[in-house]
Amino acid sequence: MEQNLDKIMKPKSIAVVGASTKEHTIGSDIMKRLQEYNFNGKIFPINPKGGIIEGLQAYTSVLEVPEEIDLAIIVVNAKFVLATIDQCHEKGIKGLCVITAGFKETGKEGAELEKQLLEKVRSYGMRCVGPNCLGVVNTDPEVRMDGCFAESLPERGHIGFVSQSGALGGGILNILKDLNLGFAQFISIGNQADVNAETALEYWENEKDVEQILLYMESIQNPANFRKLATRISKKKPILALKAGRSAAGASAASSHTGSLAGADKAANALLMQSGVIREYSLKDLFSTAKVFANCPIPQGDRVAIITNSGGPGIMATDAVCEYGMQIAKITDETKEKLRSFLPAAASVKNPIDMIASAPIEHYKQTLETVIADENVDMIMVIYLPFLGLKDIDVAKAVMEIKAEHPEKPVIGVFMTKSEFFTALSEMDVNMPFFMYAEEAADGFKRLNQQRLWINRPEGKTPCYDVDRNKAEAIMKSALMDGRAQLTTLESIDLLAAYGIRACKYGLAKNEEEVAELGNSIGYPVVMKMTSKTTSHKTDVGGVRVNIQSEEQLRAEYKDLIEKLTEKGLIDGLEGVIIQEMVKGNREMVCGIATDPQYGPMMMFGLGGVFIETMKDVTFRIAHLTDVDAEEMIKSVKAYGLLKGARGTKPAQMEQIQETLLRLSQLVNDYKFIDELDINPLLISEKTGEGIAVDGRIKVRMEEAKKALNINCTCGCC
Amino acid sequence: MEQNLDKIMKPKSIAVVGASTKEHTIGSDIMKRLQEYNFNGKIFPINPKGGIIEGLQAYTSVLEVPEEIDLAIIVVNAKFVLATIDQCHEKGIKGLCVITAGFKETGKEGAELEKQLLEKVRSYGMRCVGPNCLGVVNTDPEVRMDGCFAESLPERGHIGFVSQSGALGGGILNILKDLNLGFAQFISIGNQADVNAETALEYWENEKDVEQILLYMESIQNPANFRKLATRISKKKPILALKAGRSAAGASAASSHTGSLAGADKAANALLMQSGVIREYSLKDLFSTAKVFANCPIPQGDRVAIITNSGGPGIMATDAVCEYGMQIAKITDETKEKLRSFLPAAASVKNPIDMIASAPIEHYKQTLETVIADENVDMIMVIYLPFLGLKDIDVAKAVMEIKAEHPEKPVIGVFMTKSEFFTALSEMDVNMPFFMYAEEAADGFKRLNQQRLWINRPEGKTPCYDVDRNKAEAIMKSALMDGRAQLTTLESIDLLAAYGIRACKYGLAKNEEEVAELGNSIGYPVVMKMTSKTTSHKTDVGGVRVNIQSEEQLRAEYKDLIEKLTEKGLIDGLEGVIIQEMVKGNREMVCGIATDPQYGPMMMFGLGGVFIETMKDVTFRIAHLTDVDAEEMIKSVKAYGLLKGARGTKPAQMEQIQETLLRLSQLVNDYKFIDELDINPLLISEKTGEGIAVDGRIKVRMEEAKKALNINCTCGCC
Repeated sequence: MEQNLDKIMKPKSIAVVGASTKEHTIGSDIMKRLQEYNFNGKIFPINPKGGIIEGLQAYTSVLEVPEEIDLAIIVVNAKFVLATIDQCHEKGIKGLCVITAGFKETGKEGAELEKQLLEKVRSYGMRCVGPNCLGVVNTDPEVRMDGCFAESLPERGHIGFVSQSGALGGGILNILKDLNLGFAQFISIGNQADVNAETALEYWENEKDVEQILLYMESIQNPANFRKLATRISKKKPILALKAGRSAAGASAASSHTGSLAGADKAANALLMQSGVIREYSLKDLFSTAKVFANCPIPQGDRVAIITNSGGPGIMATDAVCEYGMQIAKITDETKEKLRSFLPAAASVKNPIDMIASAPIEHYKQTLETVIADENVDMIMVIYLPFLGLKDIDVAKAVMEIKAEHPEKPVIGVFMTKSEFFTALSEMDVNMPFFMYAEEAADGFKRLNQQRLWINRPEGKTPCYDVDRNKAEAIMKSALMDGRAQLTTLESIDLLAAYGIRACKYGLAKNEEEVAELGNSIGYPVVMKMTSKTTSHKTDVGGVRVNIQSEEQLRAEYKDLIEKLTEKGLIDGLEGVIIQEMVKGNREMVCGIATDPQYGPMMMFGLGGVFIETMKDVTFRIAHLTDVDAEEMIKSVKAYGLLKGARGTKPAQMEQIQETLLRLSQLVNDYKFIDELDINPLLISEKTGEGIAVDGRIKVRMEEAKKALNINCTCGCC
Repeated sequence: MEQNLDKIMKPKSIAVVGASTKEHTIGSDIMKRLQEYNFNGKIFPINPKGGIIEGLQAYTSVLEVPEEIDLAIIVVNAKFVLATIDQCHEKGIKGLCVITAGFKETGKEGAELEKQLLEKVRSYGMRCVGPNCLGVVNTDPEVRMDGCFAESLPERGHIGFVSQSGALGGGILNILKDLNLGFAQFISIGNQADVNAETALEYWENEKDVEQILLYMESIQNPANFRKLATRISKKKPILALKAGRSAAGASAASSHTGSLAGADKAANALLMQSGVIREYSLKDLFSTAKVFANCPIPQGDRVAIITNSGGPGIMATDAVCEYGMQIAKITDETKEKLRSFLPAAASVKNPIDMIASAPIEHYKQTLETVIADENVDMIMVIYLPFLGLKDIDVAKAVMEIKAEHPEKPVIGVFMTKSEFFTALSEMDVNMPFFMYAEEAADGFKRLNQQRLWINRPEGKTPCYDVDRNKAEAIMKSALMDGRAQLTTLESIDLLAAYGIRACKYGLAKNEEEVAELGNSIGYPVVMKMTSKTTSHKTDVGGVRVNIQSEEQLRAEYKDLIEKLTEKGLIDGLEGVIIQEMVKGNREMVCGIATDPQYGPMMMFGLGGVFIETMKDVTFRIAHLTDVDAEEMIKSVKAYGLLKGARGTKPAQMEQIQETLLRLSQLVNDYKFIDELDINPLLISEKTGEGIAVDGRIKVRMEEAKKALNINCTCGCC
C-alpha cells in the first residue's frame, strides 16, 4: 500500500464537507481554523445549501468544485459519510480526513459502517485519517494547515505527533503550546480504520521537517509491523511513546508460569524496548523528554558535569545522575586549573562545580566555556539559584550564548526561579532546554543517553541452527493424535533435545525393575520424577525425588511414590517415572515461551525454581530473537550476578545459555502454534557452568497445531 | 534544654545588628524586609555610626536601646559576632539569629569560632538560629516577621519549613510563592550550631498555626532524638522530608554482607520510615505532596473514584492508582443508577466514570455530588479536558462548590489545560488541590493513604526476653582476651543460642575420631563446616560439606578437607570442624546487624544464601525494634512470598522469625559494641517451618567492648 500521505498532510486544496455558518459547530470551527492559520492552498466549503461560509463561496457538493481537490475533511453526519466518499471518488479526491464520529466506537452497527468505509477507501485507492478523530495539522510554512478543532492554534516546531485519543490529543496540543513545544505534523488517528501509528511512522521516516516522533497509544494494531518499522526509524529519529492501559491488562490466568507472568503490558513493554522506542509513563515525562530531544544533540558518552551556584541542588543533581545510571564526569586537571584561575577560593572546582551563591554572569560564561571544552565531559547541567542583583533571564541568555558556540554537547539549564522566567523563555528562541528542578534535567540526560546506546547498538543476527525437525514433529503429532495439547514432561524434554537444547540424561521407566536398570545405567546420584498426563505441578504432590544415591534408595523412593499417588487418587494418569542424571548446582534459572493474544510469542528468561513467582526477576522479549536480544535478556536480570559466579560459584557458560534462548526462539518460529513452554529449572551445572534443562512443559494450540502438522484426526476427539 | 523558640519566632521587638543604609547588602535588605512585611513589633537598627536607617533611629549598640529586645538578627562580620553576643547577653536578649557566614563551613578556624559561639549561647541561656543562614520568617498576622533575605515576600499559609541549605531555602521560598503554597514559619538552620530540625519539630508540635512540616536536610544531627520526636509528632501532623546526598554514601567497604548492603542512605531511609516521615526524592514531589496535605483531609480508606470527560486520562489515572497500591472504588448500584438518570447513554457509569467530552458544568456538579456520597468511595479524582464553550475556571469553581459541602473526603482536580488556569487559581482561595496530570493526583492520594496507614499503625511493643547474659558475656570475653574482635563461627552460634535464637544442634570436633563420634551422636544427615580464626568466607575455600549420610562418608569428607586446606596453606588457622544437624529446606533467609557510623545499629532481614548480593531483597530498620517493626520487616521483602509457602513448601513460622529479629535487637541493645552480626542462612526448615540459624558471624568493636565488659587486658595485645 502507498504510505505516502502527501495528499492528506500537504494538500494544495481542501474541501470541508459539512462546512457550516452555525457558530460552535465543528463545520464552522474547522473553516475558521484553516483560515486563521493561513492555509497556503485553496479552501472549498461544501454545504448542500450553498451560500457564503466564512467569506468563501460554498458548493453544494464536491462535484460542483471547478478545481482539483487533494483532501476532503468530512464532518457530515455518519449516515452521509459513505455517499460523500463515493462523490469524493468521482471527483478524483485521494485524501480523506473523517472527523465524524458514530463508527466502531458506538458498537456493532457503527463497526459495520466503518468496515464499509474502509472497503470504499481501499477500492478507490484513497488514504483516510479517522473516522472519529480531531483532524490533521501541518505547520510547515509551505503548507500551514490547521485542520483540527483543538483550542489553540498550533505552534511551529519539528515534532511529529500521533494521538489515538481525540479529546486527549486536543488537551495535549494545548499543553504543547503552553510548554513552547512546537510540532511539524499532527495526526489524530481516531478509530484508525486506515491510517494508524505505523502509517505515520513510515510516512515521517524521511520527512525532514519531522525530527522526532511522539505517540499516544492505547493499543498497537500490528505489533510485528510496528516493530519492523520502529526498529529502523528510531535509529534515525527518536520515537517517544506513551502507552496507556497497562494495569487493566492480563486478567486471564494462564496455567503455566511463563503465561501468568507475562501480561499484555509486559509484551507491549518488550516490543517498545526491542524497537528502540523510548517509553514514557506519564504525559509530563513525555513532554519533558520531547523538550530535551528538541534542543539537544545526541551525546558521545554518559559523563555529566554539573555547574551550580548552590551546593544543595548540586547534591540533588549528583544523586539523580547516579541513580539514572550515568557517570559524574571526572574533569581534567587542566580544566580544574583554569577554573581556579578565575573562581573565588571558596568555590569548588571538583565536579559538581560550585561557583558559590554570588557567582556573577561572567563566571557562568567562563565556567561553562571551560567545562564544555573538557574531553572528559559529554553533557552539562547548569544550575542557577536566584541571587540578589542578578536577573535570571540574563543568566540564561549568557549560558545560551556559550552553548551556541558548542552545538555538539547537550547542555540543560536548571533554573530554580519563578515561573515568569519560563513564560519569558517561551517567547524567545532557545538553543537548550530549561527546567525548574535538577531531577528533570537528569532525566533528560538519561533519555539522551538511552538514545545514544540504542543508535550504537549492533543490529544482531538470528542464527539458524541445525535441528531435528522430524523428531520434533513426531513428538508433537503423537501427543495430538492422543488428543493432548499439553505434552508430557518426557515429550517436552525430548522435543527440547531435538532442538539441540542441552537436557540432562534421562530415560522413562514403568516399573520397579525398569527403574533400577535405568538408574544403574545412568549412574548415581539420580533424580526420579513422575510423568503424568493429568498432574502438571509435580512438586506439589511429592512427585520429584532428588539425590538418590544407590539402587536400593531408588527402589525405596519408587515404592513410596506409587503408594502416595495411590493414596491421593492420582495413580491413574501416571505414565511412569523419569530417571535423570542429577545435575548439581544451586542456581536455578527459568526460560520459556508465552503467547500473548495480541503480540504473539514472547520469550522469557530469569530466576527460576521456587523464586519465580515471588522474586519476579524475569525479562521478556517478543520472538523472534537476535543474538543481541538474547544477550541483553541474560544481562538484564538481577540473577545475571549469580550467573557471573557469585560467592565462589563457577561462572555460567553465557554463550551456551544465549544459544538456548535462540534455539527456543527458532522452535517457536518454526511451530507458531506452541502456546506455552517452560524450562524450569534451567539448572546451572556447578561442574561445567552449562545451563541444563532438567524439566520442561510444553503446550500447543490444538487446532492450529493439527492444521500445521497436517493431522486429519479420525478419532472423534475434536 | 528549653525548646521554646518564641523569642526568635514570635518576638515583640527585633534588633538588626549590622543594619545598613548601603543598597544590596544584607544589613539593608533585612531592614527593608521587616518593614515591607509590616512587622508587628518594634525594630531597632544597630550600627556603630548611628544615624537613620530605613527611616528609623539607629543605635550604636544594643546596649543603647532604651527598650526590651526579644530577638537580635546579627549580620555583622564574623569577627565581631562573639562580642555582639556578649552585648546581647548584657542587654538581656534571649533570641539570636546569626545570618553571618564564616564559621564551620569555612574550615578549622571557623569551626573553632562556632564552638565558642555555641558555648556563649549555652552559658547565657540563649537560643540561636544559624550561623550562616538565610534567616527566619513567621507569617502569623499577630507577628508578621520576614527576617530573611529571599527574593519574594512570604505567602501566608500553614506549613512549617526547615531548610539546611541557605541558598536552596531561598529558591524554595520563591517556588512556594509561585505554587501558591503558603507557610506559617520558616527557619533556615544554616550550620545548626544550636537550633536544628529537631528543635523546630518539637517547637511546632503544639503550634496550631503549623499544620504540616517540611524538612530539607543534608544530614540528621541526632538520629535517635529525631526518631523519638518525629515518631510522636508525625501522628499529629504530616512531616515531609527531602534528604539529599543519597548517592555519595557508603564508600567504605565493610567486610560483612550486612555491612556492605547497608549504606548510610539506607539508614536514613529506615529512620525516616520508622518515624512516619514521608520521604520525597525531589523538590517537585515535595511541593506536590505539600499542596495535597494543605488542601485535603486524611481519607478513611484507599478506594479511589475517577470522574472524567475523556477516556484516555481516565485510563492513565487508573494505571497510576493501581500502580501506587490503591484500589479503584467499586461504586454502588445505587450510585450507578443515579448517574444513569442524568448522564447521556454514551457515558460510562462504571468507575472511571466517563461523562464524555461534551459534559456540561451541571454534570460535573451532579456527578461529583453523587459519587462523593458513595460509601464505597474514599477519595475522588476529577478530570477535565478542555471542551469548546466551557471555561476551565468555571468548571473548577463548580467542583469546589460541591467539595465545600463534603470536607471529609479528599478531592483532587486534574485539569489538562493551559497554565493560565493555574495562574488564575493561585489568586483564588481554593479548597482542593489541582494538577495538570493524572499521575500527580494519584501520587497525592498515595501520600494521603500513607499518612492514613501511619496514623492507624499500632505503636508496638519491645519485648524483653529472658536470656543467658552470663554465657553471652563469657563467650565475648574469651574472644577479646584472645585479641579477636571477630568471633569464630562456633562462638557466634553459641552466643546466638545464649540469646534464645534457634540454632541447629552442633558440636566442635578437632580430629577424625571426635568428628565421627559427634556425627554419630547428632545423627545423620549432618553438615560439616570448618571453623577458623583466619578464614572468614568458608564456602569459597571448600570448607562446607553438606548432606553427609554416614560415618564413613563423614570420615572421608574430613580427610579431604584437611588435605585441601593444607594444599592452600590455610591449615594453620583451623580450630576444628563443626558437625551440625542438617536442616533440610531450600529457603535461605538472612538476618543481622550492621552499624552505621552516624545512625548506629541497624537490623537487616531478607533473602539470604547466594542471593544476598545479587537480588538485594533485604530491608533495614534502625534498632531497637518493636514487634510491629519486626513484623513489617518480614512482610516488606519479596521473599515474604516464599515464607508464606510458595509452590508447595511449608509456610514458615512467622512469629518465630519475628522473635528471632527481636532477640537480635535485644542483643545489640544490651551490647552496643556489636559492630556486625550475620545469620546467613537463617534456613527455613521444611519440616517445621522454623527459621534456624545454621551459620553466624559476629564482630565487635574491640576497645568499646573491653570497656563495657570490664576487661583489663594485660597481654599487651592492645
